[in-house]
Amino acid sequence: MMIASDWLDQYLNINQTRFIDELCDLLRIPSISTTADHGEDIIQCALLVKKLLLKSGCEFADVLSTSGNPVVYGEVIPDQNKPTVLVYGHYDVVPADPTDLWETDPFKPELRHGRLYARGASDDKGQFFMHLKAMEILIGKKKLNTNIKFLIEGEEETGSPGLMPFMRENKNLLQSDIILISDGVMLSKETPSIETGFRGFCAVDLEVSGASRELHSGGFGGIVANPITLLSKMLASLHDEHNRICIPGFYADVLDLTDEERQNQHTSIVNEEEYARKIGVKEFWGEEGFNLTERITIRPTLEMHGILGGYTDDGIKSIIPSKAEAKISSRLVPNQSSRVVSEIITDYLKSIAPSAIELKTVCHPGCEPYTIDINNPYFKIAQKAIEDVYKKPPVLHKDGGSLPLCYWVEKELGIKSILMGFGLQEDNMHGPNESFDLDNFNNGIKTILRFHEYLERGSIQKC
Amino acid sequence: MMIASDWLDQYLNINQTRFIDELCDLLRIPSISTTADHGEDIIQCALLVKKLLLKSGCEFADVLSTSGNPVVYGEVIPDQNKPTVLVYGHYDVVPADPTDLWETDPFKPELRHGRLYARGASDDKGQFFMHLKAMEILIGKKKLNTNIKFLIEGEEETGSPGLMPFMRENKNLLQSDIILISDGVMLSKETPSIETGFRGFCAVDLEVSGASRELHSGGFGGIVANPITLLSKMLASLHDEHNRICIPGFYADVLDLTDEERQNQHTSIVNEEEYARKIGVKEFWGEEGFNLTERITIRPTLEMHGILGGYTDDGIKSIIPSKAEAKISSRLVPNQSSRVVSEIITDYLKSIAPSAIELKTVCHPGCEPYTIDINNPYFKIAQKAIEDVYKKPPVLHKDGGSLPLCYWVEKELGIKSILMGFGLQEDNMHGPNESFDLDNFNNGIKTILRFHEYLERGSIQKC
Repeated sequence: MMIASDWLDQYLNINQTRFIDELCDLLRIPSISTTADHGEDIIQCALLVKKLLLKSGCEFADVLSTSGNPVVYGEVIPDQNKPTVLVYGHYDVVPADPTDLWETDPFKPELRHGRLYARGASDDKGQFFMHLKAMEILIGKKKLNTNIKFLIEGEEETGSPGLMPFMRENKNLLQSDIILISDGVMLSKETPSIETGFRGFCAVDLEVSGASRELHSGGFGGIVANPITLLSKMLASLHDEHNRICIPGFYADVLDLTDEERQNQHTSIVNEEEYARKIGVKEFWGEEGFNLTERITIRPTLEMHGILGGYTDDGIKSIIPSKAEAKISSRLVPNQSSRVVSEIITDYLKSIAPSAIELKTVCHPGCEPYTIDINNPYFKIAQKAIEDVYKKPPVLHKDGGSLPLCYWVEKELGIKSILMGFGLQEDNMHGPNESFDLDNFNNGIKTILRFHEYLERGSIQKC
Repeated sequence: MMIASDWLDQYLNINQTRFIDELCDLLRIPSISTTADHGEDIIQCALLVKKLLLKSGCEFADVLSTSGNPVVYGEVIPDQNKPTVLVYGHYDVVPADPTDLWETDPFKPELRHGRLYARGASDDKGQFFMHLKAMEILIGKKKLNTNIKFLIEGEEETGSPGLMPFMRENKNLLQSDIILISDGVMLSKETPSIETGFRGFCAVDLEVSGASRELHSGGFGGIVANPITLLSKMLASLHDEHNRICIPGFYADVLDLTDEERQNQHTSIVNEEEYARKIGVKEFWGEEGFNLTERITIRPTLEMHGILGGYTDDGIKSIIPSKAEAKISSRLVPNQSSRVVSEIITDYLKSIAPSAIELKTVCHPGCEPYTIDINNPYFKIAQKAIEDVYKKPPVLHKDGGSLPLCYWVEKELGIKSILMGFGLQEDNMHGPNESFDLDNFNNGIKTILRFHEYLERGSIQKC
């Protein structure tokens, strides 16, 4: 007998405040992994995840070191012969700046209009937390008949450099039948969906330097290379007039898709005008020859995510700066390699760097594109669980973002991944006023719970 | 009888510490005018200038309000029938950032290796202060036979917006025969020189905005305009492959010079290789068809002095920023107008702004190029005073920087200017570790003193 829907709704209703309070404890910790100054917060957050895992029903949980930020591992193993689900999530977050665009403090969670606002509410603290609560309910009702392992890491936002070696060294501990991940979005509350792939990612920082010191633009204007001018010229040369990336070889490994494959892409963009209004753009922009959905699913990108040089405060300081820097990154599609593309970008930048300046580049660890196996029986169970809660079969869609884990874990441990994202576009992950929708929070818990129930009742046997 | 050189040297030697102490009091005040947060420092600095004027011999001195930062006026009028010299200077400074490049605190003056290090040491506190001390010596020796008026303003670094209306309203107070200014450089200690002109200046800030909020580069990468990408393209289009400014009409008003006029330009660049090493550039850069000297004297420029957009801290934050901004400015040559060039730049930026972004521009108050009248008898006296102290006739040279006052005061009050700069290229005005050479400090005081003596003894009579 599966748990009755009515009972479940009532239980979630009664326990809503407690669940949110527990999640808020997590959200209050600024566990930012992308800068070096939050080491203590990272540790505190890992310890709290461990505490919550034990509180929610894990028989064992611990904070385990890696070469980078620690991971939190937990498990409950009711029956060795039943299928084992490894739940992956991450407790680290990106910085909250520009903080002045937040309506409330990013690390003081606030509930308003059915949404919980805080950095990490949707990406990913709120989402992995649902798995803890689904487990808690199943255990409470003595209905947990699958084994659950948790692997909650602290470096997802920096490309998980420490996670990969950790997993390689802990293959036995992590051995499981499937990895279940909630760290993405569904198309909308009305259009439940399930993710079938991710783009890869690579990032290159560049610094252009001219004179060894800042110079007065009166005495030196006209005779020395201005690093901002030449950096602009370099960046401007990366896209052509059709908004195609014009770095030689950039598209070389991108697969040609059939018309059917191209048409079979789905995103949350239903009405383009409305969507443009929602994100506040006058018009869309992008690679000619591809529609919006294709541009964010099956096409690679190259974006500048930061630039800085010279005097940037109010008013005038008429100088020629000594250096200027930019951060660029690419989203990659199947068959592209993050290492190869990083090299292609770096080599190209070096080839076009004017001789009057010095160019320094730094490649960050990247991650690979990944395609979910939709014929995998676990995928069918996930579809069924979603349909059960959302009353509609989920649409299949590719996620424009990146998740390094899936590619790596399939390659190294031979375990496939299932992605059930309960975030929404309007959650504004990585941006100001990130939030998580409470309906999706509750539906997420229910869907995860059903996944375990269907898995236990299903035809899949322990491998 | 003129004051004997031996006595003068001895006097300067005895009083060196006191002079430097007084100057240091001025340098300790961060009287930054280009940002809005130093209002109190501006006032304190103006009050100290007044005190020093009175202490150095002015019969009257006061801080007078303008529409902007106050000016300090002072005077000593020994004989209404003698020529009157109006000494102009400015007590405001540019910001000290990047402060991490300073070896000592920019507002804690430090004397080392014959140089006084502090923001404003050379530009312009140290230079106008020499005029106070020359006056003090002349009065002490009962040798002051010219009238001296001081006009020390507090907005030079922002284009002197309040000074112009002030001067128009105080024509009688400021009436004089010549304006004497020390706010520039001489070619080197071994090559004394006198300035024969300045470039003009205009500055435009631009802001490019895309989506109304920062967006995740996974979910939106490829479909929205990235403000950094498009700002780079706009900036990159301002110079062509010959490093000429390719904004239509930019050079329209620039006068064609004869070969003789072109060859008659002088700068502190004696040995190009050595000069490149001194400022730490691999090679020079600039407009094809003009040599280095021409590029910083008779050619207009367009420089980016700041750029900012997106995430600029350490590490990665893979977003598409909502906006990016840049600050650009031009140095202008005779016959160009700052208003016209600002408009040409702004109009061009508007004409090339892609439709996917919003462009906002702000024009700052500019100033006009100025050419000194070298046939003016006061100019001959200045040449003679310099030759007397430096034992060489000064080389005539155009200054690549800007001084709004000269153009305006000649136009409005009919008074010509004489520029005797005692700064040196290595003073690094506007940059980190600004300093002032003590030899030039002493020689400057002597030269100014001689200027007054020659003026009184010379054939020039009160107009």
